[in-house]
Amino acid sequence: MSALEAYTVREVVPDDWERVMAVMVEWWGGRDLRPMLPKIFFEHFRSTTLVAEQDSELVGFLVGFLCPDHAGEAYVHFAGVHPAWRRSGLGADLYRRFFARAKAEGRTVVRAVTAPVNKGSVAFHTDLGFSLLPGDDEVDGMPVTVDRGPQGDHVVRFELRLGEHGGEA
Amino acid sequence: MSALEAYTVREVVPDDWERVMAVMVEWWGGRDLRPMLPKIFFEHFRSTTLVAEQDSELVGFLVGFLCPDHAGEAYVHFAGVHPAWRRSGLGADLYRRFFARAKAEGRTVVRAVTAPVNKGSVAFHTDLGFSLLPGDDEVDGMPVTVDRGPQGDHVVRFELRLGEHGGEA
Repeated sequence: MSALEAYTVREVVPDDWERVMAVMVEWWGGRDLRPMLPKIFFEHFRSTTLVAEQDSELVGFLVGFLCPDHAGEAYVHFAGVHPAWRRSGLGADLYRRFFARAKAEGRTVVRAVTAPVNKGSVAFHTDLGFSLLPGDDEVDGMPVTVDRGPQGDHVVRFELRLGEHGGEA
Repeated sequence: MSALEAYTVREVVPDDWERVMAVMVEWWGGRDLRPMLPKIFFEHFRSTTLVAEQDSELVGFLVGFLCPDHAGEAYVHFAGVHPAWRRSGLGADLYRRFFARAKAEGRTVVRAVTAPVNKGSVAFHTDLGFSLLPGDDEVDGMPVTVDRGPQGDHVVRFELRLGEHGGEA
């Protein structure tokens, strides 16, 4: 049995929030982004928020929503994968499930942001078919947008058009 | 000119997030609930998130959304009023604007939660027509629901049915 067959994915329940809080700092390499992910997402955005488990252990999660202010857009607010499961396809699987959900709800674009320091996240998104959106500044050769918040002073912004990529079509 | 005429209300822009962060601890009497309100609400939920200003000073805000998982429901995630503006009608005005928006979008119920320690918030919500929902425990004579999160171990849950109250009908 391959690793890809060994986990299950389901929509979240509120109690999953504490489990995600317990792993986030480690999964983000010591960066503490927990304040960006309040419990409300595990209570009111359950139909677009997923967890992956192996033998009841949390191995991945994705928190997204259908943008209320932009009818054609869906947004991935957070996604994390257990370090041992990186490059296994699990993260891509979570995104593709979200893409399918967004498309079923009439969304045509998925967006996400990450910190320029998170090179693994940048590579993950571009490998998955996301484009980097133009910014108003540049960090390490990447277009970035000034955005003073918990991610730092800049964010890299990604966009993927649903239907342009085989897996998401 | 009365105090009620002296402020303006508008939908938020992302830069309002830092202004709200700067006042939250003081407005909540020293409780730090800032981790529950990430910037994302000021970026993607702008059509249901309001700020009130007087001469460019922030005097109130309300962060809400139309519940994606429950078609008839809208939710007030956070609302705060400058201490000098309590009991002025400003908070009620923000809620009523949100009620109108929710109703225009086909929502029939508005929900909110607060910590049982926040007696001012409990009184505010009941004065406005909210009912306390049944809980699974009791604190200070109020029904509360076990909910271990940043608010503490329990929350008081409120519900208001749009249309049943004059101002919201």
